[in-house]
Amino acid sequence: MQLFYNPNINTDTQQILFDKDESRHIVRVLRKKEGDILHITNGVGYLFTAEISIPNDKKCVAVITNATYKAKEWNYHLHIAIAPTKSNDRLEWFLEKATEIGIDEITPIICQNSERKVVKKDRLEKIIQSAMKQSLKFTLPKLNDAVKFSDFILQDFDGATTCIAHCENEEKLSLKKVASSHKNLVILIGPEGDFSSEEIKKSIQKNFIPITLGKSRLRTETAALVATHSVSFVNE
Amino acid sequence: MQLFYNPNINTDTQQILFDKDESRHIVRVLRKKEGDILHITNGVGYLFTAEISIPNDKKCVAVITNATYKAKEWNYHLHIAIAPTKSNDRLEWFLEKATEIGIDEITPIICQNSERKVVKKDRLEKIIQSAMKQSLKFTLPKLNDAVKFSDFILQDFDGATTCIAHCENEEKLSLKKVASSHKNLVILIGPEGDFSSEEIKKSIQKNFIPITLGKSRLRTETAALVATHSVSFVNE
Repeated sequence: MQLFYNPNINTDTQQILFDKDESRHIVRVLRKKEGDILHITNGVGYLFTAEISIPNDKKCVAVITNATYKAKEWNYHLHIAIAPTKSNDRLEWFLEKATEIGIDEITPIICQNSERKVVKKDRLEKIIQSAMKQSLKFTLPKLNDAVKFSDFILQDFDGATTCIAHCENEEKLSLKKVASSHKNLVILIGPEGDFSSEEIKKSIQKNFIPITLGKSRLRTETAALVATHSVSFVNE
Repeated sequence: MQLFYNPNINTDTQQILFDKDESRHIVRVLRKKEGDILHITNGVGYLFTAEISIPNDKKCVAVITNATYKAKEWNYHLHIAIAPTKSNDRLEWFLEKATEIGIDEITPIICQNSERKVVKKDRLEKIIQSAMKQSLKFTLPKLNDAVKFSDFILQDFDGATTCIAHCENEEKLSLKKVASSHKNLVILIGPEGDFSSEEIKKSIQKNFIPITLGKSRLRTETAALVATHSVSFVNE
C-alpha cells in the first residue's frame, strides 16, 4: 500500500486536490487512472480512501470515499529532546528510524557542547513525513523548533516523567526501570562531548532523572534511537 | 581515549610498527611525541598500552608496556544474517550501530528478493573497525562473506537458537520471548520485499523459529538494529 500525506484534510473533507508534485507522482509515476483508489493520512490518526476523479498530472483530484480512525500502535507518549549532531545525516537518520519504531515528539536542543546550533526544520519535517508514510503510520511525530537547553528544561511537560541520559559517572537509574513504570516520558540526549556538568546539575534541580541506556558507549543518534526502542520494547 | 586497532599483535608482541596512514595520523594529526602513550586493541579482547619510541610520521614505532584482557560487555552471542539493502549506506549504517550496541557476527545473505547481490566487504570491515574503536570496544564483530540464503540455512550453527524475522501473517513468537530464554542466537533479516514464502518454508523445515520484532513495519536495516538492541536490552 502506497500512503499519501495531507495535513489539510479531515472527516468533513469531500475531495482532495493534490499539489503539482504529488499529481505528477500519482499520474506519471504510479500511472493511476480515473476510478483508481488512493490512500491518504492527515497525520493525526485518520486513513482516508479516495477515488481519482480527475487524473490530471498537474492538478489531480480524488473524491474521499471512506475515513477510518487508526489509533497509534504504541501505548506510550515519548518526547525525545536531542542535541543536533555535527553531521546532519545522523540526526536525520535518527528521525527516520524513530518514526518507524514509534515516537510522539522531538525537540532539537542546543547545548553548551553543541557544535551545531541550527537545524533545517523543513528538511527534517520531510524525513519524518516520508518515514511515516513508508512505515504505514497515521500519526505524524511532532517536530518542535530548536531551543536552548536552559530554556527547554524550564518548560511545563504536563505530568511527563523527565529524564536526562548523561555519561558522567554518577548514580543513575536504568531507562529500563524508569520506562517500566512510566508511560509518558521526556528524555534528553546530549551532544558529542555530552552535556556539561552545569547542564546536568540544572536539569536535576528541575527534577530530571539521570538515566543510563546500558553499558555501551553510544554516539548521540545511537543513544537517541536506543532510548526510543527501549521505551517501545518495554511497552511491547 | 583514542583507540587504535591492530589485529597482528598479541601478548607476546613487544613493539608495534604502525603503517603509513596510522603513523601520519599519530604524529601529524595527534601530534604525539616520543614517550607518549597509545592505546591499541587487537580486536580479540585485548587492550594494549604502548609508549612511542620512534615518532616517525611514516614508520611510527611504539613499545608495548601493558596488555589487559577486557571481556566483552555483553553476555550473549548474537549472529545477524541480513540481506544487503538496495542502498549500501543503509547496511553500513546498521553495521556501525550494531557494533556500538554489541554484536558478535554478521553475514550478508543473498535472498530471492534481494536486488543487491554483492557487498563491498573491505568497506564494511572498515566501518565495523572504526565503530569498535569509536565505542571503545575490544572485540571486533566477525563479518562473514556473503552467502546465498539457501546455503546459509544449511550451516551448522553450533547449538545456537536460529530465528527468521519475516513479515507474513503466520504464527510467530516475539523476539522478546525467544531472547529471554536463549543467549546464543542467529537471526535472519530479509530484504526489501521480505523473504519469499519458499525461503520461509525452507528455513522453518531447518528449525528456524519464525519471530516478530513488534507491531511496526520496519525497513530492513531498522529491523536488524531493532533485533540487535532487543537482544542487548533483554540481557541488560
